[in-house]
Amino acid sequence: MEKPLILVTNDDGITAPGLRALIRFMSEIGEVVVVAPDSPQSGMGHAITVDNTLYSSKADIDQTDGALVEYSCSGTPADCVKLALQEILDRKPDICISGINHGSNASINVIYSGTMSAAIEAGIEGVPAIGFSLCDYSWYADFESAKEAIISIVNEALKNKIPKGVVLNVNIPKIDQSLPKGIKICRQARANWKEKFDKRTNPRGKEYYWLTGEFELLDKGEDTDEWALANDYISIVPTQFDLTAHHAIQELNGWDL
Amino acid sequence: MEKPLILVTNDDGITAPGLRALIRFMSEIGEVVVVAPDSPQSGMGHAITVDNTLYSSKADIDQTDGALVEYSCSGTPADCVKLALQEILDRKPDICISGINHGSNASINVIYSGTMSAAIEAGIEGVPAIGFSLCDYSWYADFESAKEAIISIVNEALKNKIPKGVVLNVNIPKIDQSLPKGIKICRQARANWKEKFDKRTNPRGKEYYWLTGEFELLDKGEDTDEWALANDYISIVPTQFDLTAHHAIQELNGWDL
Repeated sequence: MEKPLILVTNDDGITAPGLRALIRFMSEIGEVVVVAPDSPQSGMGHAITVDNTLYSSKADIDQTDGALVEYSCSGTPADCVKLALQEILDRKPDICISGINHGSNASINVIYSGTMSAAIEAGIEGVPAIGFSLCDYSWYADFESAKEAIISIVNEALKNKIPKGVVLNVNIPKIDQSLPKGIKICRQARANWKEKFDKRTNPRGKEYYWLTGEFELLDKGEDTDEWALANDYISIVPTQFDLTAHHAIQELNGWDL
Repeated sequence: MEKPLILVTNDDGITAPGLRALIRFMSEIGEVVVVAPDSPQSGMGHAITVDNTLYSSKADIDQTDGALVEYSCSGTPADCVKLALQEILDRKPDICISGINHGSNASINVIYSGTMSAAIEAGIEGVPAIGFSLCDYSWYADFESAKEAIISIVNEALKNKIPKGVVLNVNIPKIDQSLPKGIKICRQARANWKEKFDKRTNPRGKEYYWLTGEFELLDKGEDTDEWALANDYISIVPTQFDLTAHHAIQELNGWDL
């Protein structure tokens, strides 16, 4: 049987340890082509480069990780996927895997996530896709501990096919000295960020801000990704890019428009 | 009765004619505070500025448009809304209105849209929100022709309350010498962009790309935003930020994980 062609990307940039680990894991399953940003793109959401030029070139980061070929790209994660599908790959990949993100993309974070926007872009273009995130913001997090689960999820996705119009948002808890208890299929928890802007003055006397914030969970459900992660389970949220709130259509039809 | 407090923002930048028109329209309904990007932010999706500084200062573009006060911000549309709600406004606005975008944000464009990400950010933070777009990419489009419909939609939203967890994506067709036929509550049409990368060589001999593409409608439904617009109706899609594909949860529970 032909080995699956796996497009690997991320939002932390092509040298990020989470991406390097993902390349190693995916090389055990299929032929890996990497197209990843040349610099960190965290918080880029589903940004694309429309009013600026894009550069892309072959990269040679670490051949021992096992990729067939790697490209770095000056654009966003969504740009990387567009460029890969349209310009770089000569056939449609069997799956696109994005990550492993350094930090959680559970609950409302999916909206801001470059990792997930890459997966969603692949989904929009009809390529099955999964974003993986490890709930550990450290650059040198222990990605190896997630290997078994990641390989198992990708193999199941290749075997069973991901439902059409859906991409998977997988978050892996940070657990010291043990393994996750298992995997839960979840819904996205209701949550938001309570922003705090840290106001400072630059050396030339001009005021500026740093965006900081505290995560606020607004959901007590036990079927959410946040519940799963807090209880040492890996969460998988089937995520869609049809944003229609179908349940609200009837109510809006009652407005006097 | 106290006049409603209306936060106005956009993604084309604080000097864009679509924003200036929106400020004028909203000044007829309530007290308007503007917090908008200092430069164009099209295609920014739901990007936020996490690894960089944010600048914001009072702006004085055109007082005759009727805003109480205006701020420009160096960040993305989502940053503008965060900064407005947390730092600039001393009470929660009654509604956040984003736009008027120069060009369509119907169907899959909602995913890439800075205009809609500003509205969605407000929605996440519990503020009712609407994004308006005119399907005319011209900088000097005829925004006045949309005035009546926009004021009517905002008034209805203030009166009836937008359902919780939902923001409205309103697109207005470009019609020469007549008015839209009416308003349709729609679902987001299935569509994507068929990318074409225009490959060029820069003056120093290095290859680069421009992202271009053709819009590809994949949906023949007559209940979609694209159908409404093609038939000279204004489309309103109730849009949600819970991206869970609830219908897929059962199927994924059948996987061998």
